[in-house]
Order: sequence, then structure tokens, then C-alpha cells
Amino acid sequence: MPGRIEQMIRHVYWEAGAEGFVIGVSGGVDSAVAAALCVRAVGPDRVLALSLPSAVSAIEEIEDARELCRLLGCEHRTISIEPVLDGFRAMPGYVETPYLLGNLMARARMAVLYYHANRERRLVCGTSNRSEYLLGYSTKWGDSAADLQPLLHLFKHEVYRLGSELGVPQRILQRPPSAGLWVGQRDEDELGLSYEEIDRALASLAENEWKARDEVEERVLSRVRSSTHKRVGAFTLPSEG
Amino acid sequence: MPGRIEQMIRHVYWEAGAEGFVIGVSGGVDSAVAAALCVRAVGPDRVLALSLPSAVSAIEEIEDARELCRLLGCEHRTISIEPVLDGFRAMPGYVETPYLLGNLMARARMAVLYYHANRERRLVCGTSNRSEYLLGYSTKWGDSAADLQPLLHLFKHEVYRLGSELGVPQRILQRPPSAGLWVGQRDEDELGLSYEEIDRALASLAENEWKARDEVEERVLSRVRSSTHKRVGAFTLPSEG
Repeated sequence: MPGRIEQMIRHVYWEAGAEGFVIGVSGGVDSAVAAALCVRAVGPDRVLALSLPSAVSAIEEIEDARELCRLLGCEHRTISIEPVLDGFRAMPGYVETPYLLGNLMARARMAVLYYHANRERRLVCGTSNRSEYLLGYSTKWGDSAADLQPLLHLFKHEVYRLGSELGVPQRILQRPPSAGLWVGQRDEDELGLSYEEIDRALASLAENEWKARDEVEERVLSRVRSSTHKRVGAFTLPSEG
Repeated sequence: MPGRIEQMIRHVYWEAGAEGFVIGVSGGVDSAVAAALCVRAVGPDRVLALSLPSAVSAIEEIEDARELCRLLGCEHRTISIEPVLDGFRAMPGYVETPYLLGNLMARARMAVLYYHANRERRLVCGTSNRSEYLLGYSTKWGDSAADLQPLLHLFKHEVYRLGSELGVPQRILQRPPSAGLWVGQRDEDELGLSYEEIDRALASLAENEWKARDEVEERVLSRVRSSTHKRVGAFTLPSEG
């Protein structure tokens, strides 16, 4: 499985004539696997990994991301996004909810990743997986926005399997999945379903023409439907004539 | 021509179950036309227009955007993006070039538009036209990122024609096109071609299977080719099995 993804990463790299990749590393499994694949594809010197914590990020997660990069041999930097978030907080009439802040955080991170990519003629490597993508569990033009998404065809459980194969550290493999948008956030609590249930439901739905056969599939399908706009991008009209 | 676009805007609005639109208005023709079409489609009370100046924005342009909104009857607010840009400037080792800052500005504006959209259950209306889109004269995940792009099928000269039809103020119609990324910036200087030349070349290229027949078409085609990645979005692999 890794060979095919590495080929794709190398292909995109060569086609673009880029100097390498920038990737956001959170201490979670998706970004760890994506970073490991980039390093295997183009070598550690061409991969810049950035941890972009906010005030709610856990120090252990940054430490794990740093340790991962030490193992991979690629450069790692930590840049707080709090000054950017403070800039948004200066807007007149600013109000904050976890939802609003989470979206600002994801978009601020995208802009910081692209800033470094633009500066050094690199590409931004995304870390989205197929489970999140189909559920729409992401910020439009935020974490979903990148130049390539080498894990987008893999369900969450497949990302774990690949992480084991690639020797991603146990601390990262064993951490409960979290979008990291507030202290103690866990994806499975927020989604109300485990990734095991989600992946099983998504596979079954895909096999059965997207017809739900039980309550879990019903709930998953409803999320897939309501997030169509995130996968479509912007609505447009065809040109005339 | 306006009827078909208005129908599309209304359709997206109904399908999404949204409360209305947020649109960034710069004082230029594209955003003026897009705002006018949104107002015609769903009424002025459902359109929130935001001017998002930076330190390099011209006051007359904000004033023209405000006057446009007064004529259209929709709400207009001005929010400086300088505090957000200052947040980016706080990054360690920050360096600024017009290119790097321009991209940060476009992405900061996208995040501010979506903040207001998320807060009030609105959709973000984009203001990109077909000439810019094909040339890649835009910031990926910045000004090109929106929930709908009602002008994306129109060449720049068609946007002007529509602006005249819709009664967009002369001051806006007569302003030289500018992305507004630095003082005195003019698109046509930066592109090295007039929109008249560009639109003629794009139409001719589309008719002749994208084979260039003179030097202008050669230059336009080269821009179209090198910006493919902006139109494709992220590269991905197909899922197996």
C-alpha cells in the first residue's frame, strides 16, 4: 500500500517542479502517516513539518510530533497560531464558540502552511482521510485545503494499519483521535460513533448504493448527505455557447 | 443573462437552507456585480456585504463599496484585516514580499467572510470571473474559495457588460481592475496584457483546441497551463476495490 502512495507523492512533486513539502503535524496518526510517506517519497531534506498549536493544544502532542520528525529525520518547527487568532478576535462584535473558533483555527493553519510553502516553493501536503472526508468532518478551505491529499482514499482504520507498518510511534498510534479544537476533544465523542462503526457503515453504504440498513448507517448517511457542499467546492454555472 | 444567475443563486440558497449570503465588496466591478445579483436573487435583507481593507487599500474604494450597498439596500460593514496580518507577522522569521502578503491577505479575507457566514448560517458568495479563473490569477483557497461562484462562467468583459445592465455606479465601472494587493496595483500591468487581449485570446484558444496562434495566445496559454493545480484542487488517489 505505501508504494502506490509514495509514487503519487513523487509524481506530484516532479510535475510541480517544487522544492519539497510542508506538512502540519499535530501529534495525531493521520499527519504522522502523511509525513512518513512524504519522507519516504522525496527524502527527509525536502519535508518541512510544522506544529501549529493554539492555546488549547496539548504539549505532549507537540512533543510527540517533534519526536516523530526526529525519527524521520525531517525538519520540525513549532509556530503558535494564537497571534493570528488574536487578530480575528479584534474584529468588531467578535463572539467565540467552539465551532467558530475551530473553523478559524483550521483556516489560520492552512494560511500558515501555505505561507511557508509559498516562501520556499514547496507544496502543502494534506492529512485528510476518507472517513473524515465522507462525513464532512473537516473545515472547508481549512484542513481539507492542500495541494495533495495522499490519505484521502483510506478509511481511518486503514491509516492506523499503515501507521503500524511504517513504524509510527506507539504513543501516536494509541492516542484517541482528536481534531484538537478544544481541550479534551475526542472525535468519537463529538461524532457520537466510533471510527470502527463509521468505517463499517461507510463501506456497507458504498456497497449498497448508499441505502442505509440500520440506525448507525442512517446517522452516517445523514452526515454524508449534509456535507456534500464540502466535497463539491463552489457551485457554478456552465459557460454558454 | 442576469435571470439565469439569479436562479442559480436562489437555488443554492434554498438547497442549503441558509439565512442568506456574505460577500466581500472591494469597490471593484466583480464584487459589485455579484452583490447586485445576490440582492436581486434573495432580497437586500439577506445579503451582508463586508469591505475588508488592509493598510494598502484605498479609502475611495471602500466608499464606493459602501455607496453601492446603500443603492442596493443591503447591510455593509468595514472590517480591517490588519490585526490578522499582524498575527501572521508575529511568526518567527517572518519575511514579507508582495506575493507572500497578497496570499495571506486573500486567505485572511476568506476566513473573515466564513466567520461571519458560520455565525449567521449564511453562505459565502465568491466574486471570481472566468478570465481570472483560467489564468489562475487568484489565491488558491483564498479569493477563489466560496460556496458559490456566480460569475465564474463570465469573462471579464462580460462582467462589465452585466454591471452596466444592472446599474452598477460609473465610478466602479470605470476604475482600472486591481487585485488591491498593493498601492497602485493594476491587474493589466501585472499580467502584462489587457483584459481585452486576454479575453480574446481565451475565446480563441477555447475554439482552437487550446493551440496558440500568436504570441499573446502563447502567453495566455502558458498561464492557463501553469495554473492547472488551482483548478484541480488537491491531488488524490482513487480508492481501491
